[in-house]
Amino acid sequence: MPGSPGTPVPASATVGGLGERAILERIRARVPASPSWVAAGIGDDAAIVEPARNTLDVFTTDALVEGVHFDRRWSSARDIGYRALAVNLSDLAAMGASPRTALLSLILPAHLPVADLDDLLDGFLSAAEPHGLALVGGNVTASPGPLVIDVTATGAVRPRRMLLRSGARPGDELYVSGAVGAAAAGLAWLRAGGAAGSGERAAGLDACAERYLRPEARVRLGGLVGRNRAASACVDLSDGLADAVRQIAAASGTGAVTEAEALPLDKAASGWWTERGVDPVAAALTGGDDYELLFAVPRRARRRFLAVTRLVKRVPVSRIGAITEKAGLSLRRGGVDEPLPDGFAHFSAVP
Amino acid sequence: MPGSPGTPVPASATVGGLGERAILERIRARVPASPSWVAAGIGDDAAIVEPARNTLDVFTTDALVEGVHFDRRWSSARDIGYRALAVNLSDLAAMGASPRTALLSLILPAHLPVADLDDLLDGFLSAAEPHGLALVGGNVTASPGPLVIDVTATGAVRPRRMLLRSGARPGDELYVSGAVGAAAAGLAWLRAGGAAGSGERAAGLDACAERYLRPEARVRLGGLVGRNRAASACVDLSDGLADAVRQIAAASGTGAVTEAEALPLDKAASGWWTERGVDPVAAALTGGDDYELLFAVPRRARRRFLAVTRLVKRVPVSRIGAITEKAGLSLRRGGVDEPLPDGFAHFSAVP
Repeated sequence: MPGSPGTPVPASATVGGLGERAILERIRARVPASPSWVAAGIGDDAAIVEPARNTLDVFTTDALVEGVHFDRRWSSARDIGYRALAVNLSDLAAMGASPRTALLSLILPAHLPVADLDDLLDGFLSAAEPHGLALVGGNVTASPGPLVIDVTATGAVRPRRMLLRSGARPGDELYVSGAVGAAAAGLAWLRAGGAAGSGERAAGLDACAERYLRPEARVRLGGLVGRNRAASACVDLSDGLADAVRQIAAASGTGAVTEAEALPLDKAASGWWTERGVDPVAAALTGGDDYELLFAVPRRARRRFLAVTRLVKRVPVSRIGAITEKAGLSLRRGGVDEPLPDGFAHFSAVP
Repeated sequence: MPGSPGTPVPASATVGGLGERAILERIRARVPASPSWVAAGIGDDAAIVEPARNTLDVFTTDALVEGVHFDRRWSSARDIGYRALAVNLSDLAAMGASPRTALLSLILPAHLPVADLDDLLDGFLSAAEPHGLALVGGNVTASPGPLVIDVTATGAVRPRRMLLRSGARPGDELYVSGAVGAAAAGLAWLRAGGAAGSGERAAGLDACAERYLRPEARVRLGGLVGRNRAASACVDLSDGLADAVRQIAAASGTGAVTEAEALPLDKAASGWWTERGVDPVAAALTGGDDYELLFAVPRRARRRFLAVTRLVKRVPVSRIGAITEKAGLSLRRGGVDEPLPDGFAHFSAVP
């Protein structure tokens, strides 16, 4: 019977044909049992959750909208479900918080195949599992337009262990995790019909596309830095590195200098942009979707920060600049300071 | 300058022209200062909130989608903003929880006037204010289609004071708050061009339309009943009374009988349906959007329940049926039992 929990449906089945109750049953059947600290999960008017002992609650919400944040031509339903949670986990990571629960609000076009709904949920749950995050509730409604996945994630952080944007002070050094620019190049490659390409170049850009489609939130890194009070401020790179530097400086009432030569540019991404006459530094600074973390680190905390971050072996950190007393945001390049590009500016051509 | 916080903009200004940063600034400027238990509010990667002492966290999410949940022909932007929070407050009320915070996720078509965004936010804040609820965060993004307002609300409830759906036992009596059927009749009246009508009838249906457009969540009632352990189960009537009875019975593993003659039908609504050849009992049972509460009350708690609910003077409660050991849902009418209509069934004509 179509609509029974977990029951196979014909390939042609759509969520519109299934109806709201059957959709909810189908979702519930796929979600693993809740941990003991969830007093009421999916199925009541609201979820009830025991707060973690001696912690503060951390709440964030972020939506993915079809045609704005993803394109079904290259994002599979599984990718979309995964990414919808990952971008929220990144926000929790940027506060130094440990993920606990999520609410999944689905706004579904009637023509969406039931198989896509299943895949979307599986992608979401695969992003939740490594963090012990429990899906405790949500909402399903019809969309007369695009597919929308709106997620609220909650987490826990100990008092005085949270990472705000506003704590940076002049002299603090700026560190970024991982490599930058990969996601933007990966998206550009997908848009240019990437998967059709081949060979060495395609291999590197495949990895960039994967970074765009399935970003890995730096949850462990953010948590470790917060718990060890190893940074004065932190923000994630969802809207690009230049925007992240701007956010910390604005919230902290400081300026900042970013060093072009110090940026950990993704190699395949740099090659892609250079071949197309685009400055790879500008592309990496203004391109979004990397979901790395930017930290401000006081000099006296530098050794602690480096020791703590070395515990996350796969994710290096790079010193890329410093917080300045002088207002303004500059990009230092070949010894010359220029204004830091705006997150919304178009890429400038390589001279 | 358009886009500065609170600055007047030309009547023709749209959110697309304003841009994301200016929209966020505009929202932030309208939101009152956060209470002291909010450690980080709007503007960081996530909100940080001190849990209330000795309580459990309650989380709920509900979205309003243009063309599905509201129609701009009769819902003003202020109504939409108000209702987007009210429907979430109703879910908290149905758990016996006290509201604390909300996250507001806005998915905005570029052509939306800035004045509508302002009104929407003012409507939202006007629903928050009486409950001391703090807007602590959210998200703004573009919509290539409908306007979507997705809200997550959080609340607090003391352990063993929450109202689940699953606690009803055979012999418990069913009580509903307020009157039923008003919102569905109000919506039908609006759809029929109601505001153009006049006189006595219009006056009563005006009030029905108001109940649809600006529902009042029964927050105080739900909280009092929960704190006093005066009910064994509770659910709100968002999808209609028949659906609410079905939800409690299904979650509790029981049946239920509903008495047609005991239903507190809204008078103007009944008149409207009767005139149109529609059975007002069926209309009230299957029509949604009332946002009243349905309680199951053990006989030994009846006096306590009635004493507690009398404290909320403007909102009467009516005994409308009982939980039965025998499975199945029946509607008793003139001494004869018939099946309870489905929440999704069409209205049946008056014989």
